[in-house]
Amino acid sequence: MASSKPDIAFIGLGAMGFGMATNLVKQGYTVTGFDVWAPTLERFKAEGGLAATTPAEAVKDKDYCVCMVATAQQAQAVLLEGENAAVPALPRGAAVLLCSTVPCSYVQELEKQLAAADRGDIQLVDAPVSGGAYRAADGTLSIMAGASDAAIEKSRFLLQEMSDPAKLYIVAGGIGAGSNMKMVHQVLAANQILATSEALGFAAHLGLDLKKAADTVIGSQGKSWMFEHRSPRALHPEFQPIASATTIILKDTSIITAEARRVGFPTPMTSTAEQVYFTGLGRGYGPDDDSSLIRLYWEGKGKVGPVAATAQTDEAKLALVVGLLKGIHLCSAGECIAFAARLGLDLDQVFELCINAAGGSAMLEAVGPEMMSLVKTTGAAAGSPAGDSLDKVVSGLQEAVDEAQRLKAPIFLGSQALNLTRLAMAHRPKTAAAATSGVVVKVWG
Amino acid sequence: MASSKPDIAFIGLGAMGFGMATNLVKQGYTVTGFDVWAPTLERFKAEGGLAATTPAEAVKDKDYCVCMVATAQQAQAVLLEGENAAVPALPRGAAVLLCSTVPCSYVQELEKQLAAADRGDIQLVDAPVSGGAYRAADGTLSIMAGASDAAIEKSRFLLQEMSDPAKLYIVAGGIGAGSNMKMVHQVLAANQILATSEALGFAAHLGLDLKKAADTVIGSQGKSWMFEHRSPRALHPEFQPIASATTIILKDTSIITAEARRVGFPTPMTSTAEQVYFTGLGRGYGPDDDSSLIRLYWEGKGKVGPVAATAQTDEAKLALVVGLLKGIHLCSAGECIAFAARLGLDLDQVFELCINAAGGSAMLEAVGPEMMSLVKTTGAAAGSPAGDSLDKVVSGLQEAVDEAQRLKAPIFLGSQALNLTRLAMAHRPKTAAAATSGVVVKVWG
Repeated sequence: MASSKPDIAFIGLGAMGFGMATNLVKQGYTVTGFDVWAPTLERFKAEGGLAATTPAEAVKDKDYCVCMVATAQQAQAVLLEGENAAVPALPRGAAVLLCSTVPCSYVQELEKQLAAADRGDIQLVDAPVSGGAYRAADGTLSIMAGASDAAIEKSRFLLQEMSDPAKLYIVAGGIGAGSNMKMVHQVLAANQILATSEALGFAAHLGLDLKKAADTVIGSQGKSWMFEHRSPRALHPEFQPIASATTIILKDTSIITAEARRVGFPTPMTSTAEQVYFTGLGRGYGPDDDSSLIRLYWEGKGKVGPVAATAQTDEAKLALVVGLLKGIHLCSAGECIAFAARLGLDLDQVFELCINAAGGSAMLEAVGPEMMSLVKTTGAAAGSPAGDSLDKVVSGLQEAVDEAQRLKAPIFLGSQALNLTRLAMAHRPKTAAAATSGVVVKVWG
Repeated sequence: MASSKPDIAFIGLGAMGFGMATNLVKQGYTVTGFDVWAPTLERFKAEGGLAATTPAEAVKDKDYCVCMVATAQQAQAVLLEGENAAVPALPRGAAVLLCSTVPCSYVQELEKQLAAADRGDIQLVDAPVSGGAYRAADGTLSIMAGASDAAIEKSRFLLQEMSDPAKLYIVAGGIGAGSNMKMVHQVLAANQILATSEALGFAAHLGLDLKKAADTVIGSQGKSWMFEHRSPRALHPEFQPIASATTIILKDTSIITAEARRVGFPTPMTSTAEQVYFTGLGRGYGPDDDSSLIRLYWEGKGKVGPVAATAQTDEAKLALVVGLLKGIHLCSAGECIAFAARLGLDLDQVFELCINAAGGSAMLEAVGPEMMSLVKTTGAAAGSPAGDSLDKVVSGLQEAVDEAQRLKAPIFLGSQALNLTRLAMAHRPKTAAAATSGVVVKVWG
């Protein structure tokens, strides 16, 4: 049966790309794949794909090219560098969907390079994805796509094939807007991945049963999508399976802090996470699952001699762990929303995307609307505060920080979050005495 | 020859206490020492001291007691706990000089305990010291003494025997004020000790000759007293001699952050340092010299694969190291001065003490007066700005943070300092567009 579906070139068949490309094969597309790692191409052929030996060969006569390499450097190499680069070989008017997570600045630069190379005809789509390898293979990713209207229209069917119908976000703002949307989502990811290790490491210092601690968190206001997905791997004796390497979230983290520096925006939470990721990398944990960073947190457990904990019961100890996470999630939500506002993104779209994706947390759901209202208006009263009072969250967080200090347990994110709430209180309007916790968003400016 | 000098009891003959007590012996005092570690008492006898087997025995019939134990817990034990405690055995009207570094809250509580035990007659002096073992033995310490006028008068000669004439600070505010003064000084110490490791670890990632880097820093605006004293030990192959253990500065660091939490004051710099100290403790570095924390910073060097540094020349790389330190010292100065203002200390005295003690740095000297002027007035223009523009310091710091990110080198304090300057810029008055760097102090409230 001859397919009326257009042929697709797919560059980059890693954990995500392989699933995405294979899904397109299953949907009846003829997909020509390219990857630098030859065994992957053999696997792809076994799944019904075609294999090319260069990017140029892959895209020859293809009206659509999906690029899912790991970094901006790799995207630049396969698209534009050398005689086997894809772009010169693309037919005129072809669509290029860049699905890699790259800095906004890179994809905007790529658009300029296409124009400079007299290939402004190419319909570039800035379309980073989220959701992990399973959803990639299932065609149910979240996709954040920014591009010209024409490029979006040309590529919409393909974006739909790869995404969940409810999770295809067309982001206003053209090229760069998709990457910015992904980036602000990753503020939550970067902090909440590490918060899982931090909270469980703290639970270990407290002498808690970690499985019980994890179950308690998941049933509490300290829960997050990341905690639910990372905690089983953090508690696996060998941190298995390696579902997402530390180097991957570190790459996204560095995109956030570098883009923030470029626009002069402070990212105290994400920068703290980045420093801990660097420490993990230095220890040689880069290739390991990111949940394995719990090793950085429980290291001193029991070494510092007998310490009298003030929290004696399991219930009291579990409350400290939940209080720690609530404080961290409050501040990661604030950093995400304040950064999104600074970048001019549609905050309602940011919020909807984040609560339905890997960045979701109970705190974000509770405080997000108030935070959005606070950064949209200037100095006006909050919209509809739904979260706990700031004092209540701060008090829970402070109890956790007090106890961690007593146990000499590092809690980088929790300590940072507490200081941020203090800075927020130092700068909040005098009229906001009984503020709800969303007011912390004002510390970012 | 019979001495007309009063007999002294001296409790706690550790690295500092031994030198202080021995100095008093040399000055002609009859000093009765007590320490839980018996060999120390033998050494003290060899130096001409007398030895007691309990605190109570040491203080019997002594009108003066100096207490130089390591912690508030130890002070409480030797002064008040059990049948051999010192306080019940002290003659009426005796002076107790508590020279240990303890929280303000503890020494104020001690004053209340004395009153409750019907020993309000004791002339308590809150007199923490600074300067290290050499100056202790030399009788040239810095001493920050807070007490009633009567207690100060009674003890002045003894404070003078132990201190440099120019470095005896009588701190207004009574019991607790001396400890607060020491504490705000230790904000600088806690950050600048760690900054030495951070800067030299960064220099290692940059591929610099570390001795040359240290020499350059010492001749630059990135210099500090701590850097001068720590860098030789950080560069010693075995981090020798062990002049000050990591556990000691960690103890002081935790006093700062705990007291700050008690009054709701944010300490983003010191809290960051504390988390790194906890990490070092977890690695087993607690008993080692604090300069050995450079190990936490250079760990990943060379592991992350070839990275193209943008700084190619030694001169450019050295400038990055200096830029890093200037940024950190700017923010540690801000945290010190803002905290001192919050505690109601005499800022001129704080500044004079700090620039002449272990907390001194070129940045503090340059920006301290402007910072003091900014926190004293409310919203008014700065007094006499002497430092670089904020933009200049931030730009140097940002280049260092950019390069560290490229090298995947952790720089916890530098990253935090950069974010604080960004937060400061977000909150500074619109009229302060061309602000000098001291304006960063406003971020604390």
